[in-house]
Parts: sequence; structure tokens; C-alpha cells
Amino acid sequence: MVGGGFGGLLAARGLGGADVDVTLVDRENYFLFQPLAYQVATGSLSSVEVAAPLRQVLRRHRRTHVVLGEVTGFDLERRVVVVEHLPNGEERRELPYDQLVVAGGSRYSYFGHDEWAQHAPELKSLEGALALRDRILSAFEAAEVERDEAARAAFLTFVVVGAGPTGVEMAGQIAELGHEVLHTEYRSADTRRARVLLVEAGPRALAGYPPRLSASAASQLRSLGVTLRLSSPVVDVGDGFVDVEPAGGERERIAARTVIWAAGVQASPLAAQLAAASGLATDAQGRVEVERDLTLPGHPEVLALGDMVTVRGQRLPGIAPVAMQQGRHAAASIRAGTRAPFTYRNKGELATIGRRRAVGVVAGVPVTGLVAWLLWLGVHIAYLVGFQNRVLVLTRWAFAYLVHGRGARVIHGR
Amino acid sequence: MVGGGFGGLLAARGLGGADVDVTLVDRENYFLFQPLAYQVATGSLSSVEVAAPLRQVLRRHRRTHVVLGEVTGFDLERRVVVVEHLPNGEERRELPYDQLVVAGGSRYSYFGHDEWAQHAPELKSLEGALALRDRILSAFEAAEVERDEAARAAFLTFVVVGAGPTGVEMAGQIAELGHEVLHTEYRSADTRRARVLLVEAGPRALAGYPPRLSASAASQLRSLGVTLRLSSPVVDVGDGFVDVEPAGGERERIAARTVIWAAGVQASPLAAQLAAASGLATDAQGRVEVERDLTLPGHPEVLALGDMVTVRGQRLPGIAPVAMQQGRHAAASIRAGTRAPFTYRNKGELATIGRRRAVGVVAGVPVTGLVAWLLWLGVHIAYLVGFQNRVLVLTRWAFAYLVHGRGARVIHGR
Repeated sequence: MVGGGFGGLLAARGLGGADVDVTLVDRENYFLFQPLAYQVATGSLSSVEVAAPLRQVLRRHRRTHVVLGEVTGFDLERRVVVVEHLPNGEERRELPYDQLVVAGGSRYSYFGHDEWAQHAPELKSLEGALALRDRILSAFEAAEVERDEAARAAFLTFVVVGAGPTGVEMAGQIAELGHEVLHTEYRSADTRRARVLLVEAGPRALAGYPPRLSASAASQLRSLGVTLRLSSPVVDVGDGFVDVEPAGGERERIAARTVIWAAGVQASPLAAQLAAASGLATDAQGRVEVERDLTLPGHPEVLALGDMVTVRGQRLPGIAPVAMQQGRHAAASIRAGTRAPFTYRNKGELATIGRRRAVGVVAGVPVTGLVAWLLWLGVHIAYLVGFQNRVLVLTRWAFAYLVHGRGARVIHGR
Repeated sequence: MVGGGFGGLLAARGLGGADVDVTLVDRENYFLFQPLAYQVATGSLSSVEVAAPLRQVLRRHRRTHVVLGEVTGFDLERRVVVVEHLPNGEERRELPYDQLVVAGGSRYSYFGHDEWAQHAPELKSLEGALALRDRILSAFEAAEVERDEAARAAFLTFVVVGAGPTGVEMAGQIAELGHEVLHTEYRSADTRRARVLLVEAGPRALAGYPPRLSASAASQLRSLGVTLRLSSPVVDVGDGFVDVEPAGGERERIAARTVIWAAGVQASPLAAQLAAASGLATDAQGRVEVERDLTLPGHPEVLALGDMVTVRGQRLPGIAPVAMQQGRHAAASIRAGTRAPFTYRNKGELATIGRRRAVGVVAGVPVTGLVAWLLWLGVHIAYLVGFQNRVLVLTRWAFAYLVHGRGARVIHGR
């Protein structure tokens, strides 16, 4: 079992009581509830509240082992996984397997411009979220002591690249932070004047949702004070600026000290390693195609799932519910000793924009505003791993939504 | 106002409604509730639960400004404070003052062996606590994959240097972690066999407490499985070992992968800067002596307080209640425009050792065991800054004490 995200964790859980020895390998010692990572970045939640130690989650499964390390290769002939950087200092170890489940997930893609990453950190990992929190809060601190008007404006300008669910949520949270929370705490800088720009290459926000909901999201974003710039591909990112080039328009430079990357999707390098090991190719997003039963072509003993794969003949969104269902399916296949085609049961999708603001489709019915927001709250609390985290996050949210308090605003990296 | 610890924060709060403009300068954007930092290191609490954003704490005081930056010097003639590394990138700025309060606190001292710091991180700062959490949890992870018996034992050996309150609390928590919490989660390593050594140069633990309580602390530590090594000064620390040389005994090498430093006290460099600016000397711990009214000799407009000073004619312990009372006293002096001698009202002191284990003196009465522990819980919840943090910490403790859960066990630095 490689990867302790939604797919890997559900697969491991599904094999819990089974008559098999399970070894779960992950680079981190925790499962990250990625849909809430953006709340860590804005100081609404603490990093450990959206993370659950993998060992703790799996502690009752006595035949499940957790190994920390980075998987760097597969030998499908000899049936071994190559793990590097073990915690005891060991450089490399081979772990043998009878059956293999790979669920490496995905990250954001800088479209070949990896040099943008230093100026525009991503929001997929916990480290990324914490780095972003430092940057966002430091920008407000910088604005407070800055005397030059233009420089101060740049510190109070936040650009979020990519208007998918994460970008929309992030932009909304920063706007709330500046406009509704921080303004009582700063004396020189007027945080209510913070500009939040959500920049999207495509023609609408939340492209995966029905157009009606994209329009609703756009107007809810506007009501929060977010400036939505559609059809505006980013062409350069540097120290203190973002360049966009709207379709048919002129290239424009936005002076902004904080740029957040939530665009593009790139499969985990594990997909390419699997492909290389089995003589397959990857697609433009680096994904490998698996059979309908999630097995690697020609290797019924290897299952791969989640954001890092495409399933033959299906078009599935790269969201947590897909990975979770695939993880459960993989576990069921291994338990049964058979291979059956995977079918995705679409229960819906929700994206929040801010307090009392959200959009989504639930059981085929589009929802917006307060109803969507309450559903979003319920679903995210219900799926959060660990009872303790549920209680803590509920407490934080109660404070955040009732008294506008945001307690996790600590800058770690000064 | 320099320093946002117990002393500085209480002084700033005390000046809240007064007819003065207050500027609080600190390197960090948060107040750290330092007495609970050790619980961050053992994964019992999240870092942000023991920290409160300074701006949030002081937000109602409209004439109080918070500036992030490092104070590097004082010019008492021109009445300016030199601040470096401002968050907007400015290298250096001078802040003028009419009256100055300096509360820089203290850190642990490596007795001139700063090279030990890399092998034995300290527990005074939040960054230190997080670095220690990574080390402690990684050591258990390493033991899990290590096949060599001796190497595994070294990964499962934890040495805490210094049996003051922090060292005692830390040793107790690590013992509980290994012996009572983690053993259900590891498969190859037996965390119940983790050795925790508390090494102290002096003849007893908690030297600031009455000898009877030191003896009680020692037996409570033993009941948790901590090995207490008294009269054993540390003479060297390196990669994977600690050397101790007991009085009259032979030098001994302890193989340990995790060493935690909680010994010695060294005043903040601000004390030496104040001394240099006013032509005074510092003592062996780097502290500067102030008058009975907390003013710097010859400078009635400058007050200094907390761990970084000694008060003429008084011998005060370096603990939070002293700094808090001095902070309040400084604020009252400034409000009144007078200078009166400071008197410490000793309400008592408590040190916890583990679940249901503690010692202390409250209102002159020595307490031990469950009673002391309940008092300790109550005092620490009551003094924790921020209502939200109180609720969150209570929740965490309820889980930790009732179901042995420790939710904040995330390794950030892999």
C-alpha cells in the first residue's frame, strides 16, 4: 500500500480485519484532510487539526504496519517497492509484496515554470499551507509598518491563481480575514482595503460545476469583495508581481506580495514510475491509465487509484470521494480475491466560499448560499478523520463564525 | 515596550485604557504560554493552542501598536530603540520613546557549549518545541524500521538534561507517550521499553522546591518509569550520545538518539544591551540588576523586568508569576507617574509530572499527587491566554487523560 491519502487510507482500513499483512508506506506520518488545508493557510485551523497520525488511525489493525519513507521505484517483475530516506537513516530498502495498491495523489502544476513556485507556494500539502500562512500574515504585518503608499498596497494585494474549489475557498477566506477579522487589530494599515484577486485562465470559476453554479459562486465571491479575473492566464510570476494576459487583451502586471498557487494538476511521480515499470505511457497530467477494475494493464496484482490514474472508459473528477470509493473498492477486490469493475457513485460536490456562502450539487440537486454552506459544514465535519479533530474543528469554527475569531494566526517561520 | 512574553504582555494590558500610546515590539507575532510548550513537543497540544496572536490579545486597546521586529540596541541618551528585520524588508528602524519597558525573558544556556544545541534542542521557544516534536516522534519511527538491536535501543532512549520543572514535566510526558500511548500503534518496536533518563547536575530534582517535594517528585517520576540521574553533570553531547560525569564517579556514555535540553538559564541578550547602554555590568547568567522599583539605575524612564533582571535586594525565582506581577507593577508605575518598590506576592508554584502526578506549594502548603495535579490543571487553564485556547486545550486534555489519545502527533519537518 503506497500513499496515506484518501485512497490509500480507505484501502488500508478496508483491509483491516482481513487475513492479510498490510504495509502502508508514506512520506509523512499523518493523513492530511486536504480539503481543509486552505483553512490552515488562513489561520482558521491548526495544522494538526486537519491531520491525523496514520498509526493512530490504523492502531486497531494489528496486522497493518506503517513505514515512513519515500517510494522511488517499483520492480514489478521481482514484486518489490523501493523505499528511500527511512527514518533511521537507512538510504534504501526494498519491500516485497504479493499485491500492491498505489495511491500517490496529485499536486498542483506550474505548467513547466517550477521557478514560480518560490514566489507562489501551493496549497496541496500541510507544509505548503503553513508556508502560506506565514506569508499571508507577514504581508499584513509588513503593510502595518510600511510607510510607502504603493509598497503598502502591494503588501495588501493577494492573488490566488486558479478558480477551482481550492482557489475559490482560499480567495474567500483571505477576503474575510482582511475585511472582517483583522481590521480591529491593525492601527496603521487598513486591512479592509486588502485586494483579493482570483485569477483564472478559463472562462468561469468552478469549471467542474454546472454554469449556473459558477455564476452563483462568482456573485458570492463579489459580495465578499473578491475580484474575479476570468479568461486571464498567468504568464509570469516573480518577486512581488504576477503578469496576466487576458484573451485578446494586453499583458498586465499586478503588484502583489502574496501569490497563492491553486491551478493545474500534476499526478504524483509514482504514476510515471509505475508506467515506466510496466512499459506504459502517462498522459499530459502525468497520470497512468488503469483498467476498469483499477489494475495496472498486464498486472492484476497491482492496483492504482486516485488522482494519479485515469480509469479506462471513465472520466472521473480528481476529488476525494472518487479516491475514497476507489480505495474501498481496491480493498474489497483484494479481500475477495477477485477483480470487478469500479463504478463511481456520484453523491455530489460542494465548495464553500465564505461564511454562509457555498455552492454545490447534492444528489443531483444544485444548492447555493446558506443551505449549501450548512451541507458543506456537515459533510466536512463528518468526513474529518478522528473524533478529537471533529470536536476541535467544530470549536474553532464556532468561534470563527460566531465571533469572527481566528485563533491559529501564528507565524512560525520568522 | 519590548517583549511580548508574560511580563511585556501584562505591562501592555495594564496600560490598555491609559492616556498613553503604547508600542509593543516582539520578534514573533504571538504570545507563547511557555509553561505548556513541552506539551507541544510531545504531541499533546498543537503549537497554536499555546500561542495567542499579540494583536488579537491587545485588539481592544486602540492606542496600542504592535511591531514585529528584533530589538538590537538601545540609545538611552536619544531615547530610541533600534529595531531590525522588520516584516516589510526594512533592515533597521529607530523607535523613539518617552518611557521604556524591557521584558526580554531568558533562554536555556548550554554552558558555553553552543555546539551541543544542534544535538540537544531546547524547549523554551515554540520553534524549539516543534523541532523536538519532530525528533521525538521520528525516533519512534526510526526504532520501528531499525533491525539492529543496539541501534534500536538508542532510538528508544531519551535523555532530558536538567531536572527543573520543564525537565521533570518533559521526562514524565515522554515516558507516558512511550509506555502508555504509542505501544498499541507500533508493530516491530516495543515502545514500552523506551528508556527515559532525566539527568541533573545537582543533588535533587526541582531544586527550587522544598526537599520533601523533590523526594516526592523523584518517586512519582520513578513510578512513571523515568530514570532519574542526580549529581550527574553533562560533560559532552554529540550525534547519538550524551556523556555524564557523576560527582566522584567515572565518565559514562549514554547512547541516545534524542536529547532534550532544559538546563541552565541565560538572560535575553537585551539585558546585555541595556547594561551596555547604561554602563552597567551583567551577572553570570547575563542579567542586569534593576532598582527595587524595577527602573534601570540612573534611568527612571526605563523599566526592566522578568527573567532578564535581578531586583536589588531581592531573590526571585525565574517563573511566570514573577514576570506577570512585575509587568503589572510597571504598568501601574507608568500610569501613576510615580515609581514604587516592587514586592512579589508568592502564591505558590506547581510542577506536573504526568497524569494524576504533580508537586507544588500553594499558599505555603506543600501538595503532591492528584490534588497537586488538579490544581495544576486549573491554574494552567485559568492563565492560558484566550478563551478559545482554553476550550481547545481542555478538549485535548480530556482526550489525553481519559482515552490516552494524543492527537497532535504530526511530524512537520521531514
